[in-house]
Amino acid sequence: MNVANDAREAVVLLSGGLDSATVLAIALSEGYRCHALSFDYGQRHDAELKAAGRIAVELGAVEHKLIRIGLDEIGGSALTDTNIAVPETPTAGIPVTYVPARNTVFLALALGWAEVLDAADIFIGVNAVDYSGYPDCRPAFIEAFQNLANLATRAGAEGKPLHVHTPLIHLSKAEIIRRGTALGVDYSRTVSCYAADGEGRACGKCDACRLRRQGFQDAGIADPTRYR
Amino acid sequence: MNVANDAREAVVLLSGGLDSATVLAIALSEGYRCHALSFDYGQRHDAELKAAGRIAVELGAVEHKLIRIGLDEIGGSALTDTNIAVPETPTAGIPVTYVPARNTVFLALALGWAEVLDAADIFIGVNAVDYSGYPDCRPAFIEAFQNLANLATRAGAEGKPLHVHTPLIHLSKAEIIRRGTALGVDYSRTVSCYAADGEGRACGKCDACRLRRQGFQDAGIADPTRYR
Repeated sequence: MNVANDAREAVVLLSGGLDSATVLAIALSEGYRCHALSFDYGQRHDAELKAAGRIAVELGAVEHKLIRIGLDEIGGSALTDTNIAVPETPTAGIPVTYVPARNTVFLALALGWAEVLDAADIFIGVNAVDYSGYPDCRPAFIEAFQNLANLATRAGAEGKPLHVHTPLIHLSKAEIIRRGTALGVDYSRTVSCYAADGEGRACGKCDACRLRRQGFQDAGIADPTRYR
Repeated sequence: MNVANDAREAVVLLSGGLDSATVLAIALSEGYRCHALSFDYGQRHDAELKAAGRIAVELGAVEHKLIRIGLDEIGGSALTDTNIAVPETPTAGIPVTYVPARNTVFLALALGWAEVLDAADIFIGVNAVDYSGYPDCRPAFIEAFQNLANLATRAGAEGKPLHVHTPLIHLSKAEIIRRGTALGVDYSRTVSCYAADGEGRACGKCDACRLRRQGFQDAGIADPTRYR
Protein backbone atom coordinates (compact mmCIF):
# COMPACT_ATOMS: atom_id res chain seq x y z
CA MET A 1 0.00 0.00 0.00
CA ASN A 2 2.95 2.34 0.62
CA VAL A 3 4.80 4.08 -2.19
CA ALA A 4 8.34 3.10 -1.28
CA ASN A 5 10.55 5.93 -2.44
CA ASP A 6 8.74 9.23 -2.73
CA ALA A 7 6.39 8.62 0.21
CA ARG A 8 6.31 11.19 2.98
CA GLU A 9 6.54 10.14 6.62
CA ALA A 10 3.60 10.81 8.92
CA VAL A 11 2.88 10.21 12.58
CA VAL A 12 -0.65 8.86 13.07
CA LEU A 13 -2.24 8.87 16.51
CA LEU A 14 -3.87 5.46 16.91
CA SER A 15 -5.99 4.69 19.95
CA GLY A 16 -7.38 1.40 18.71
CA GLY A 17 -10.86 2.86 18.35
CA LEU A 18 -13.04 3.30 15.29
CA ASP A 19 -12.04 6.88 14.48
CA SER A 20 -8.27 6.54 14.62
CA ALA A 21 -8.33 3.27 12.63
CA THR A 22 -10.19 5.18 9.91
CA VAL A 23 -7.62 7.97 10.05
CA LEU A 24 -4.78 5.49 9.60
CA ALA A 25 -6.54 3.99 6.57
CA ILE A 26 -7.01 7.50 5.11
CA ALA A 27 -3.37 8.50 5.68
CA LEU A 28 -2.18 5.26 4.04
CA SER A 29 -4.55 5.81 1.09
CA GLU A 30 -2.93 9.21 0.59
CA GLY A 31 0.48 7.56 0.23
CA TYR A 32 2.04 8.39 3.59
CA ARG A 33 4.46 6.03 5.31
CA CYS A 34 2.62 5.88 8.62
CA HIS A 35 4.28 5.68 12.04
CA ALA A 36 1.46 4.77 14.41
CA LEU A 37 1.60 6.14 17.95
CA SER A 38 -0.41 4.96 20.95
CA PHE A 39 -0.32 5.93 24.59
CA ASP A 40 -0.64 3.93 27.75
CA TYR A 41 -1.91 6.58 30.14
CA GLY A 42 -3.57 4.47 32.79
CA GLN A 43 -6.82 4.29 30.86
CA ARG A 44 -9.23 1.64 32.02
CA HIS A 45 -9.78 0.31 28.54
CA ASP A 46 -6.39 -1.19 27.76
CA ALA A 47 -8.16 -3.59 25.41
CA GLU A 48 -7.99 -0.54 23.11
CA LEU A 49 -4.18 -0.71 23.15
CA LYS A 50 -4.18 -4.34 22.07
CA ALA A 51 -6.55 -3.34 19.29
CA ALA A 52 -4.19 -0.51 18.27
CA GLY A 53 -1.31 -2.97 17.87
CA ARG A 54 -3.23 -5.33 15.60
CA ILE A 55 -4.79 -2.50 13.56
CA ALA A 56 -1.35 -0.94 12.93
CA VAL A 57 -0.06 -4.25 11.58
CA GLU A 58 -3.17 -5.22 9.61
CA LEU A 59 -3.65 -1.85 7.90
CA GLY A 60 0.06 -1.49 7.07
CA ALA A 61 1.76 1.07 9.32
CA VAL A 62 5.56 0.89 9.02
CA GLU A 63 5.86 0.79 12.81
CA HIS A 64 3.80 1.11 15.98
CA LYS A 65 5.12 2.81 19.10
CA LEU A 66 3.53 2.77 22.54
CA ILE A 67 4.51 5.52 24.96
CA ARG A 68 3.68 5.32 28.65
CA ILE A 69 2.53 8.58 30.27
CA GLY A 70 1.58 8.84 33.94
CA LEU A 71 -1.72 10.67 33.34
CA ASP A 72 -3.22 8.51 36.09
CA GLU A 73 -0.95 10.46 38.48
CA ILE A 74 -3.04 13.50 37.66
CA GLY A 75 -6.49 11.92 37.88
CA GLY A 76 -9.63 13.92 37.25
CA SER A 77 -11.27 11.62 34.69
CA ALA A 78 -13.49 8.56 34.82
CA LEU A 79 -11.15 7.03 32.23
CA THR A 80 -8.07 7.14 34.47
CA ASP A 81 -9.43 7.50 38.00
CA THR A 82 -11.13 4.42 39.40
CA ASN A 83 -12.94 6.61 41.96
CA ILE A 84 -15.04 8.19 39.19
CA ALA A 85 -17.69 5.98 37.58
CA VAL A 86 -18.16 5.81 33.79
CA PRO A 87 -21.72 7.07 33.24
CA GLU A 88 -24.24 4.82 31.47
CA THR A 89 -26.68 7.61 30.59
CA PRO A 90 -26.01 10.79 28.56
CA THR A 91 -24.81 13.81 30.55
CA ALA A 92 -24.92 17.52 29.66
CA GLY A 93 -21.75 19.59 29.04
CA ILE A 94 -18.20 18.26 29.23
CA PRO A 95 -18.41 14.61 30.43
CA VAL A 96 -16.48 13.03 33.31
CA THR A 97 -14.73 10.82 30.74
CA TYR A 98 -12.87 13.96 29.61
CA VAL A 99 -9.16 13.44 30.33
CA PRO A 100 -7.50 16.76 31.26
CA ALA A 101 -5.38 18.12 28.43
CA ARG A 102 -5.28 14.71 26.75
CA ASN A 103 -5.10 15.78 23.12
CA THR A 104 -2.59 18.51 24.00
CA VAL A 105 -0.32 15.89 25.57
CA PHE A 106 -0.82 13.38 22.74
CA LEU A 107 -0.15 15.94 20.01
CA ALA A 108 2.91 17.21 21.88
CA LEU A 109 4.40 13.71 21.92
CA ALA A 110 3.44 13.15 18.28
CA LEU A 111 5.24 16.40 17.52
CA GLY A 112 8.37 15.20 19.29
CA TRP A 113 8.38 11.94 17.34
CA ALA A 114 7.65 13.75 14.06
CA GLU A 115 10.66 15.92 14.70
CA VAL A 116 12.91 12.90 15.26
CA LEU A 117 11.53 11.21 12.10
CA ASP A 118 11.81 14.45 10.13
CA ALA A 119 8.10 14.08 9.37
CA ALA A 120 6.05 17.20 8.61
CA ASP A 121 2.64 15.55 8.98
CA ILE A 122 0.61 14.40 11.98
CA PHE A 123 -2.80 12.75 11.68
CA ILE A 124 -5.35 12.77 14.50
CA GLY A 125 -8.93 11.52 14.53
CA VAL A 126 -10.60 14.39 16.36
CA ASN A 127 -14.18 15.08 15.47
CA ALA A 128 -16.17 18.23 16.08
CA VAL A 129 -19.55 16.72 15.18
CA ASP A 130 -19.99 13.71 17.47
CA TYR A 131 -17.27 15.06 19.74
CA SER A 132 -18.89 14.30 23.10
CA GLY A 133 -18.24 17.82 24.36
CA TYR A 134 -14.45 17.59 24.69
CA PRO A 135 -12.95 21.09 24.22
CA ASP A 136 -9.76 19.72 22.67
CA CYS A 137 -11.58 18.30 19.65
CA ARG A 138 -12.55 21.65 18.11
CA PRO A 139 -11.01 23.09 14.92
CA ALA A 140 -9.81 26.18 16.83
CA PHE A 141 -7.83 23.91 19.16
CA ILE A 142 -6.15 22.12 16.25
CA GLU A 143 -5.26 25.45 14.57
CA ALA A 144 -3.76 26.71 17.84
CA PHE A 145 -1.73 23.51 18.18
CA GLN A 146 -0.39 23.80 14.64
CA ASN A 147 0.62 27.38 15.36
CA LEU A 148 2.35 26.26 18.57
CA ALA A 149 4.10 23.38 16.79
CA ASN A 150 5.69 25.69 14.29
CA LEU A 151 7.13 27.80 17.10
CA ALA A 152 8.10 24.87 19.31
CA THR A 153 10.39 22.85 17.15
CA ARG A 154 13.72 22.81 15.45
CA ALA A 155 11.97 22.10 12.13
CA GLY A 156 9.57 25.00 12.64
CA ALA A 157 12.46 27.27 13.63
CA GLU A 158 14.21 26.23 10.42
CA GLY A 159 11.17 27.07 8.29
CA LYS A 160 9.78 23.58 7.67
CA PRO A 161 6.12 23.84 8.63
CA LEU A 162 4.26 21.03 10.33
CA HIS A 163 0.72 20.14 9.33
CA VAL A 164 -1.85 18.57 11.64
CA HIS A 165 -4.35 16.59 9.54
CA THR A 166 -7.85 16.05 10.93
CA PRO A 167 -9.65 14.18 8.13
CA LEU A 168 -12.64 13.32 10.35
CA ILE A 169 -13.21 16.69 11.93
CA HIS A 170 -16.37 17.57 10.03
CA LEU A 171 -17.69 14.04 9.43
CA SER A 172 -20.59 12.43 11.26
CA LYS A 173 -19.97 9.01 12.81
CA ALA A 174 -21.95 7.45 9.93
CA GLU A 175 -19.77 9.22 7.35
CA ILE A 176 -16.62 8.06 9.15
CA ILE A 177 -17.88 4.48 9.09
CA ARG A 178 -18.77 4.66 5.39
CA ARG A 179 -15.36 6.13 4.56
CA GLY A 180 -13.45 3.50 6.54
CA THR A 181 -15.57 0.66 5.18
CA ALA A 182 -14.79 1.84 1.63
CA LEU A 183 -11.07 1.76 2.55
CA GLY A 184 -11.35 -1.78 3.90
CA VAL A 185 -11.20 -1.13 7.64
CA ASP A 186 -12.46 -4.13 9.62
CA TYR A 187 -14.25 -2.41 12.49
CA SER A 188 -14.71 -5.65 14.40
CA ARG A 189 -10.97 -5.25 15.19
CA THR A 190 -11.43 -1.83 16.83
CA VAL A 191 -12.46 -1.10 20.42
CA SER A 192 -14.25 2.16 21.28
CA CYS A 193 -15.98 1.26 24.57
CA TYR A 194 -14.90 3.14 27.71
CA ALA A 195 -15.53 0.01 29.75
CA ALA A 196 -14.45 -2.81 27.42
CA ASP A 197 -13.61 -6.13 29.06
CA GLY A 198 -10.23 -7.89 28.76
CA GLU A 199 -11.30 -9.46 25.46
CA GLY A 200 -12.19 -6.02 24.04
CA ARG A 201 -15.96 -6.69 24.20
CA ALA A 202 -18.04 -3.54 24.51
CA CYS A 203 -20.56 -2.63 27.23
CA GLY A 204 -23.04 -1.17 24.74
CA LYS A 205 -24.09 1.48 27.28
CA CYS A 206 -21.39 4.18 27.60
CA ASP A 207 -21.24 7.37 25.49
CA ALA A 208 -18.67 5.85 23.13
CA CYS A 209 -20.78 2.71 22.59
CA ARG A 210 -23.93 4.73 22.00
CA LEU A 211 -22.29 7.00 19.39
CA ARG A 212 -20.72 4.05 17.63
CA ARG A 213 -23.87 1.92 17.52
CA GLN A 214 -25.90 4.88 16.23
CA GLY A 215 -23.21 5.50 13.60
CA PHE A 216 -23.53 2.02 12.12
CA GLN A 217 -27.31 2.33 12.18
CA ASP A 218 -27.22 5.73 10.42
CA ALA A 219 -24.68 4.44 7.88
CA GLY A 220 -26.91 1.46 7.10
CA ILE A 221 -23.98 -0.89 7.78
CA ALA A 222 -24.27 -3.92 10.05
CA ASP A 223 -22.58 -3.22 13.42
CA PRO A 224 -19.68 -5.72 13.76
CA THR A 225 -18.92 -4.64 17.35
CA ARG A 226 -18.44 -7.52 19.78
CA TYR A 227 -20.74 -6.81 22.71
CA ARG A 228 -20.52 -8.76 25.93
CA MET B 1 5.55 31.31 53.53
CA ASN B 2 2.11 30.46 52.09
CA VAL B 3 -0.95 32.57 52.80
CA ALA B 4 -3.27 29.84 53.97
CA ASN B 5 -6.76 30.88 52.97
CA ASP B 6 -6.82 33.33 50.09
CA ALA B 7 -3.80 31.82 48.30
CA ARG B 8 -4.23 30.80 44.69
CA GLU B 9 -3.07 27.39 43.49
CA ALA B 10 -0.26 27.19 40.94
CA VAL B 11 1.53 24.37 39.14
CA VAL B 12 5.28 24.98 39.06
CA LEU B 13 7.50 22.99 36.71
CA LEU B 14 10.52 21.95 38.75
CA SER B 15 13.45 20.17 37.12
CA GLY B 16 15.80 20.37 40.07
CA GLY B 17 18.05 22.84 38.28
CA LEU B 18 18.97 26.40 39.15
CA ASP B 19 16.32 28.12 37.03
CA SER B 20 13.26 26.17 38.14
CA ALA B 21 14.29 26.36 41.83
CA THR B 22 14.36 30.14 41.42
CA VAL B 23 10.94 30.08 39.77
CA LEU B 24 9.50 28.09 42.68
CA ALA B 25 10.92 30.63 45.15
CA ILE B 26 9.41 33.48 43.12
CA ALA B 27 5.97 31.84 42.90
CA LEU B 28 5.99 31.21 46.67
CA SER B 29 7.06 34.80 47.33
CA GLU B 30 4.02 35.94 45.34
CA GLY B 31 1.75 33.99 47.68
CA TYR B 32 0.84 31.01 45.48
CA ARG B 33 0.23 27.58 46.95
CA CYS B 34 2.70 25.73 44.75
CA HIS B 35 2.20 22.22 43.35
CA ALA B 36 5.63 21.24 42.03
CA LEU B 37 5.77 18.98 38.97
CA SER B 38 8.77 17.02 37.72
CA PHE B 39 9.16 14.55 34.90
CA ASP B 40 11.11 11.36 34.59
CA TYR B 41 11.61 11.18 30.84
CA GLY B 42 14.64 8.96 30.58
CA GLN B 43 17.04 11.84 31.04
CA ARG B 44 20.60 10.86 31.88
CA HIS B 45 20.80 13.28 34.76
CA ASP B 46 18.34 11.71 37.20
CA ALA B 47 20.35 13.32 40.00
CA GLU B 48 18.28 16.35 38.95
CA LEU B 49 15.08 14.54 39.99
CA LYS B 50 16.42 13.81 43.46
CA ALA B 51 17.34 17.50 43.67
CA ALA B 52 13.79 18.45 42.61
CA GLY B 53 12.32 16.41 45.46
CA ARG B 54 14.46 18.05 48.14
CA ILE B 55 14.03 21.57 46.72
CA ALA B 56 10.23 21.20 46.67
CA VAL B 57 10.25 20.26 50.37
CA GLU B 58 12.88 22.76 51.48
CA LEU B 59 11.36 25.77 49.70
CA GLY B 60 7.82 24.92 50.80
CA ALA B 61 5.76 23.51 47.91
CA VAL B 62 2.50 21.97 49.14
CA GLU B 63 3.23 18.81 47.15
CA HIS B 64 5.63 17.37 44.59
CA LYS B 65 4.51 15.08 41.80
CA LEU B 66 6.74 13.07 39.49
CA ILE B 67 5.27 11.91 36.19
CA ARG B 68 7.00 9.32 34.05
CA ILE B 69 6.92 9.95 30.29
CA GLY B 70 8.53 7.62 27.75
CA LEU B 71 10.39 10.35 25.84
CA ASP B 72 13.33 7.96 25.61
CA GLU B 73 11.10 5.88 23.29
CA ILE B 74 11.32 8.75 20.84
CA GLY B 75 15.05 9.44 21.12
CA GLY B 76 16.69 12.22 19.14
CA SER B 77 18.50 13.95 22.02
CA ALA B 78 21.81 13.52 23.80
CA LEU B 79 19.84 13.87 27.05
CA THR B 80 17.68 10.78 26.45
CA ASP B 81 19.57 8.76 23.83
CA THR B 82 22.76 7.09 25.06
CA ASN B 83 23.96 6.81 21.44
CA ILE B 84 24.38 10.60 21.24
CA ALA B 85 27.26 12.10 23.26
CA VAL B 86 26.82 15.21 25.41
CA PRO B 87 29.18 17.79 23.84
CA GLU B 88 31.92 19.33 26.00
CA THR B 89 32.57 22.29 23.70
CA PRO B 90 30.07 24.95 22.54
CA THR B 91 28.18 24.15 19.32
CA ALA B 92 26.42 26.45 16.86
CA GLY B 93 22.61 26.44 16.37
CA ILE B 94 20.20 24.15 18.20
CA PRO B 95 22.29 21.75 20.31
CA VAL B 96 22.03 17.93 20.41
CA THR B 97 20.87 18.23 24.03
CA TYR B 98 17.60 19.65 22.67
CA VAL B 99 14.80 17.21 23.56
CA PRO B 100 12.13 17.16 20.83
CA ALA B 101 9.00 19.03 21.91
CA ARG B 102 10.02 18.83 25.55
CA ASN B 103 8.49 22.05 26.82
CA THR B 104 5.34 21.41 24.79
CA VAL B 105 4.93 18.04 26.51
CA PHE B 106 5.79 19.41 29.96
CA LEU B 107 3.40 22.36 29.68
CA ALA B 108 0.66 20.07 28.37
CA LEU B 109 0.96 17.87 31.46
CA ALA B 110 1.14 20.91 33.74
CA LEU B 111 -2.05 22.10 32.06
CA GLY B 112 -3.77 18.79 32.77
CA TRP B 113 -2.82 18.93 36.44
CA ALA B 114 -3.78 22.61 36.70
CA GLU B 115 -7.19 21.68 35.36
CA VAL B 116 -7.64 18.95 37.98
CA LEU B 117 -6.47 21.32 40.75
CA ASP B 118 -8.66 24.13 39.40
CA ALA B 119 -5.48 26.23 39.22
CA ALA B 120 -5.29 29.08 36.70
CA ASP B 121 -1.53 29.59 36.94
CA ILE B 122 1.45 27.65 35.64
CA PHE B 123 5.06 28.70 36.28
CA ILE B 124 7.94 27.64 34.03
CA GLY B 125 11.58 28.69 34.12
CA VAL B 126 12.21 29.22 30.42
CA ASN B 127 14.75 31.82 29.52
CA ALA B 128 15.21 33.59 26.21
CA VAL B 129 18.59 35.15 27.08
CA ASP B 130 20.86 32.24 28.04
CA TYR B 131 18.47 29.84 26.34
CA SER B 132 21.03 27.59 24.64
CA GLY B 133 19.21 27.82 21.31
CA TYR B 134 16.12 25.79 22.24
CA PRO B 135 13.16 26.98 20.12
CA ASP B 136 10.65 26.18 22.86
CA CYS B 137 12.11 28.76 25.26
CA ARG B 138 11.07 31.83 23.25
CA PRO B 139 8.32 34.27 24.31
CA ALA B 140 6.37 33.58 21.10
CA PHE B 141 6.25 29.88 22.03
CA ILE B 142 4.89 30.65 25.50
CA GLU B 143 2.24 32.99 24.07
CA ALA B 144 1.19 30.30 21.59
CA PHE B 145 0.93 27.74 24.39
CA GLN B 146 -1.21 30.04 26.51
CA ASN B 147 -3.50 30.58 23.53
CA LEU B 148 -3.71 26.80 23.01
CA ALA B 149 -4.37 26.18 26.71
CA ASN B 150 -7.38 28.43 26.72
CA LEU B 151 -8.86 26.49 23.80
CA ALA B 152 -7.85 23.06 25.10
CA THR B 153 -9.45 22.86 28.48
CA ARG B 154 -12.72 22.69 30.29
CA ALA B 155 -11.71 25.78 32.32
CA GLY B 156 -10.80 27.70 29.16
CA ALA B 157 -14.06 26.60 27.51
CA GLU B 158 -15.90 27.90 30.57
CA GLY B 159 -14.16 31.30 30.39
CA LYS B 160 -11.58 30.90 33.15
CA PRO B 161 -8.30 31.90 31.51
CA LEU B 162 -5.04 30.17 32.27
CA HIS B 163 -1.84 32.15 32.67
CA VAL B 164 1.65 30.80 31.97
CA HIS B 165 4.16 32.72 34.10
CA THR B 166 7.75 32.96 32.89
CA PRO B 167 9.43 35.16 35.50
CA LEU B 168 12.94 34.39 34.19
CA ILE B 169 12.31 34.85 30.49
CA HIS B 170 14.18 38.14 30.11
CA LEU B 171 16.75 37.69 32.91
CA SER B 172 20.41 36.85 32.44
CA LYS B 173 21.78 33.89 34.39
CA ALA B 174 23.48 36.36 36.76
CA GLU B 175 20.18 38.17 37.37
CA ILE B 176 18.41 34.86 38.02
CA ILE B 177 21.08 33.91 40.56
CA ARG B 178 20.86 37.29 42.31
CA ARG B 179 17.07 37.05 42.46
CA GLY B 180 17.09 33.52 43.87
CA THR B 181 19.85 34.32 46.35
CA ALA B 182 17.78 37.26 47.64
CA LEU B 183 14.85 34.85 48.09
CA GLY B 184 16.99 32.40 50.05
CA VAL B 185 17.48 29.66 47.44
CA ASP B 186 20.39 27.40 48.35
CA TYR B 187 21.87 26.66 44.92
CA SER B 188 24.18 23.98 46.29
CA ARG B 189 20.99 21.87 46.43
CA THR B 190 20.26 22.26 42.70
CA VAL B 191 21.69 20.22 39.82
CA SER B 192 22.00 21.74 36.33
CA CYS B 193 24.70 19.55 34.75
CA TYR B 194 23.71 17.40 31.74
CA ALA B 195 26.16 14.75 32.90
CA ALA B 196 25.91 14.89 36.72
CA ASP B 197 27.06 11.79 38.59
CA GLY B 198 24.89 9.75 40.95
CA GLU B 199 25.69 12.16 43.79
CA GLY B 200 24.59 15.15 41.71
CA ARG B 201 28.15 16.41 41.23
CA ALA B 202 28.62 18.45 38.07
CA CYS B 203 31.03 17.84 35.18
CA GLY B 204 31.92 21.51 34.84
CA LYS B 205 32.24 21.11 31.05
CA CYS B 206 28.81 20.83 29.40
CA ASP B 207 26.73 23.80 28.13
CA ALA B 208 24.62 23.85 31.29
CA CYS B 209 27.70 23.87 33.57
CA ARG B 210 29.37 26.62 31.54
CA LEU B 211 26.30 28.89 31.64
CA ARG B 212 25.83 28.31 35.34
CA ARG B 213 29.45 28.89 36.32
CA GLN B 214 29.57 32.08 34.23
CA GLY B 215 26.34 33.22 35.90
CA PHE B 216 27.79 33.02 39.40
CA GLN B 217 30.92 34.80 38.19
CA ASP B 218 28.89 37.60 36.55
CA ALA B 219 26.67 37.91 39.63
CA GLY B 220 29.71 38.24 41.87
CA ILE B 221 28.41 35.38 44.04
CA ALA B 222 30.56 32.41 45.07
CA ASP B 223 29.64 29.32 43.02
CA PRO B 224 28.34 26.69 45.48
CA THR B 225 28.09 23.99 42.79
CA ARG B 226 29.55 20.65 43.77
CA TYR B 227 31.94 19.66 40.97
CA ARG B 228 33.42 16.22 40.76
